[in-house]
Amino acid sequence: MSSRTIMSGEEVLLYLNERKSWIVRVEEGKKFHCHRGIVELGELMGKHYGFEVSTTLGARLRAMPADYLDHLERISRRTQVIYPKDMAYIALMANVRSGSRVLECGTGSGALTSYLAGLVRPGGKVITYEMREEFQENARRNIEKLGLSDSVEFRLKDLTSGIDESDLDSMVLDMATPWLVMAQAYQALRAGGRLVSFSPTINQVEKTVEEMRMVGFVGIKAVELIMRTYKVKANETRPDMVMVGHTGYIVSARKC
Amino acid sequence: MSSRTIMSGEEVLLYLNERKSWIVRVEEGKKFHCHRGIVELGELMGKHYGFEVSTTLGARLRAMPADYLDHLERISRRTQVIYPKDMAYIALMANVRSGSRVLECGTGSGALTSYLAGLVRPGGKVITYEMREEFQENARRNIEKLGLSDSVEFRLKDLTSGIDESDLDSMVLDMATPWLVMAQAYQALRAGGRLVSFSPTINQVEKTVEEMRMVGFVGIKAVELIMRTYKVKANETRPDMVMVGHTGYIVSARKC
Amino acid sequence: MSSRTIMSGEEVLLYLNERKSWIVRVEEGKKFHCHRGIVELGELMGKHYGFEVSTTLGARLRAMPADYLDHLERISRRTQVIYPKDMAYIALMANVRSGSRVLECGTGSGALTSYLAGLVRPGGKVITYEMREEFQENARRNIEKLGLSDSVEFRLKDLTSGIDESDLDSMVLDMATPWLVMAQAYQALRAGGRLVSFSPTINQVEKTVEEMRMVGFVGIKAVELIMRTYKVKANETRPDMVMVGHTGYIVSARKC
Amino acid sequence: MSSRTIMSGEEVLLYLNERKSWIVRVEEGKKFHCHRGIVELGELMGKHYGFEVSTTLGARLRAMPADYLDHLERISRRTQVIYPKDMAYIALMANVRSGSRVLECGTGSGALTSYLAGLVRPGGKVITYEMREEFQENARRNIEKLGLSDSVEFRLKDLTSGIDESDLDSMVLDMATPWLVMAQAYQALRAGGRLVSFSPTINQVEKTVEEMRMVGFVGIKAVELIMRTYKVKANETRPDMVMVGHTGYIVSARKC
Repeated sequence: MSSRTIMSGEEVLLYLNERKSWIVRVEEGKKFHCHRGIVELGELMGKHYGFEVSTTLGARLRAMPADYLDHLERISRRTQVIYPKDMAYIALMANVRSGSRVLECGTGSGALTSYLAGLVRPGGKVITYEMREEFQENARRNIEKLGLSDSVEFRLKDLTSGIDESDLDSMVLDMATPWLVMAQAYQALRAGGRLVSFSPTINQVEKTVEEMRMVGFVGIKAVELIMRTYKVKANETRPDMVMVGHTGYIVSARKC
Repeated sequence: MSSRTIMSGEEVLLYLNERKSWIVRVEEGKKFHCHRGIVELGELMGKHYGFEVSTTLGARLRAMPADYLDHLERISRRTQVIYPKDMAYIALMANVRSGSRVLECGTGSGALTSYLAGLVRPGGKVITYEMREEFQENARRNIEKLGLSDSVEFRLKDLTSGIDESDLDSMVLDMATPWLVMAQAYQALRAGGRLVSFSPTINQVEKTVEEMRMVGFVGIKAVELIMRTYKVKANETRPDMVMVGHTGYIVSARKC
Repeated sequence: MSSRTIMSGEEVLLYLNERKSWIVRVEEGKKFHCHRGIVELGELMGKHYGFEVSTTLGARLRAMPADYLDHLERISRRTQVIYPKDMAYIALMANVRSGSRVLECGTGSGALTSYLAGLVRPGGKVITYEMREEFQENARRNIEKLGLSDSVEFRLKDLTSGIDESDLDSMVLDMATPWLVMAQAYQALRAGGRLVSFSPTINQVEKTVEEMRMVGFVGIKAVELIMRTYKVKANETRPDMVMVGHTGYIVSARKC
Repeated sequence: MSSRTIMSGEEVLLYLNERKSWIVRVEEGKKFHCHRGIVELGELMGKHYGFEVSTTLGARLRAMPADYLDHLERISRRTQVIYPKDMAYIALMANVRSGSRVLECGTGSGALTSYLAGLVRPGGKVITYEMREEFQENARRNIEKLGLSDSVEFRLKDLTSGIDESDLDSMVLDMATPWLVMAQAYQALRAGGRLVSFSPTINQVEKTVEEMRMVGFVGIKAVELIMRTYKVKANETRPDMVMVGHTGYIVSARKC
């Protein structure tokens, strides 16, 4: 892939340094402006990825293929989304895999939707519920930009008012009142199907777990992933002093 | 899927309770023995998943489709493997997706291999290095049982002696001396390709990060995921008292 | 102190190795038996601390002054007590100092009582409530053995039935239902007095904090101290794999 | 103490709200100015603690006795000091008690010095080393203000150039290169004496522990205290999102 040449219409990451990089779409005649000068994007066509282009002010930008994580980072900057550490673990515990039919609620910015959609390809589907139309529209644009629309079905609907689907492989919930939908979720899952719910407060966890037990879920687990980042340098290595102390709790369970 | 009927040759999870369940292969005339009695597995054929079968001693076992997580749990019980929390985050940070060409080292029991292999389908490939033949053989059996052999290439080779591949999308390292292969890893990756290394000691992290900087990797991050499990019960909710205090550090970086 | 000679009646720590040491009282004619042989304790008299005595089987035991931490460790082995990390922080946040009048509830094994009693000397007092007579008796013995009886007043009483004291400098609570005594605690403290409550569950914390706000406490803080232990060895340093994941939450507040 | 009346010369905490309070010295004719108006401090004399005084702009300030924690908080705001959680645990693990002779290095702002000095009263002594004269002067002022000068001896000296004391009960080190003084520390302690060292990086811990083993210390433990703070509110309780991720490691050991 690295020896591939850059073609018109492709999204390219222009990398300046650790703090600054941009995703641009390559087109003949288009200019990219940044605080370090201007780049003629047409110049990139036909070059190999890894190529270094100069701005009008002499800065050197490296052209790399923009990948999924680059896009995810950009979505995350604009809205508050589930952190990657939680996303990855939620998907694993929900056993989201190629071919899975997964119900998600709520869509939000579509960040988690996009991660799940990437996993169910080919053949699978993410059915994603959202009540707020403007959120759904924004998510739809993000999913389209990532080329994942075929794997996603958007529903403008409140999940607490009912679940249209049945025989689902997995359900992934990031909603304020997950305990209100446990009975319906149990109905909507296939035998052995898996449910994962993400909540910021411990009270939500308590209500959700109690309700899960009531309706018959098994294998109920409530966990929290705490990420510690490190400042690494020979003879000066230590954890970072400022840390994200909490994102949310992850509750997982299975239909028996 | 839940309304699917159980067919001969399928692997079925027989669920007794939270602590006890077994994966069995359904065959006419085969018997399954456990401490709670015997089940004629032929009886399961034609039944719907979710069916409850009785043992000769009157215990009731629920038949569920055995899914990937059930198999992973069984692999993990027999050998020390990377924990799911780390597996999931490693795969995300290495941007392992449908179609990816990923180099893994070392194969070990094949647990992480199987997770990566599930992600690269279809079209992608996990090339996995291992020096110890008996480990490779065991891993190969695990991968076959999971039906993932098409997505995996096994190499019986020490990675520090050289990397045969080039233009890789990702590399995932779980080896004792990752810093020894950083220069070659950089060569073997495509532009924008991602490398993730897992190490139990902080000294390995220090050496790896220093070497990553030396050879030109960018976006270097060293983190640790600490999983806290909770005992949830109305009015008695608290973190569990015994905890896995440490599994390992995850270092990720990108070829510029 | 180290050059002091060992005298009759003194408690001495006989140290064999990292895992094994014993506290003995030195007396003429008394013998100490362990799995590594016998020591004539009279032999120790007149020797300097640091002296190495041989057992009848040739093992070498080092005689050290038994200090408070040695005794605390022995109390802790027999009963479940508040961990030292929590003890120390509780005492600091309650501002327990020389001369303080502190109310403690409940006494339990007297481990925390002994720590607080050590801090209030001279002139101060720890008034400690306990409902169960056998606990109080055991605690009283532990406090006597430590020579701290002058600084402790024992009360055989349920704190929720009323507080006899007033004008207290501090209150330290380790009880099942701290929220039931918040109003009385506020009355019993002097202006500016400090209260610290230790609870294992988050539900207790929630109820306690809500009640603290109701009755007028200020500076309310709820925290948790997580202790991580390390296996340190050149080039193999990492956190221990088995960890105490939770002891309890510490809530502190102040009377305005 | 609360029913005590306020006297001339006393330090009083004027409490406005959770975020704002001030320590003032009460004197006839002196005025205290803040953004909420002016208070005639002479007015406070003869009033009971707990009294509410009005500013010229009508704000109500509650007069409380300024205690040690109030002063510690003010010292901590001006310079970077060891956190209270670490201070308290260090003092416990060093077994600093009434009557102890403790060597501290370095003095810094005197915050830890003041905590140790409060513990050794009466009869004990904190001997504190510091190389930088301006630090020592500042610490001396802080200790005087707290009325603890009798319990502290200041040394303007680099500990790595030698230790003047012997037969010490405890040593508490917060210095850049603790491993350089381990052999001398062992000499300076009494038999059974305890040493505690605080370091921000894991590399310092590794060197210190290795050296401790070399010179004969026993009971070596390396730990880290991670404080998690909580936002507590009925039905919305969760850990705070921003957290101090790291302060330092605490290594403790004992002379055999």
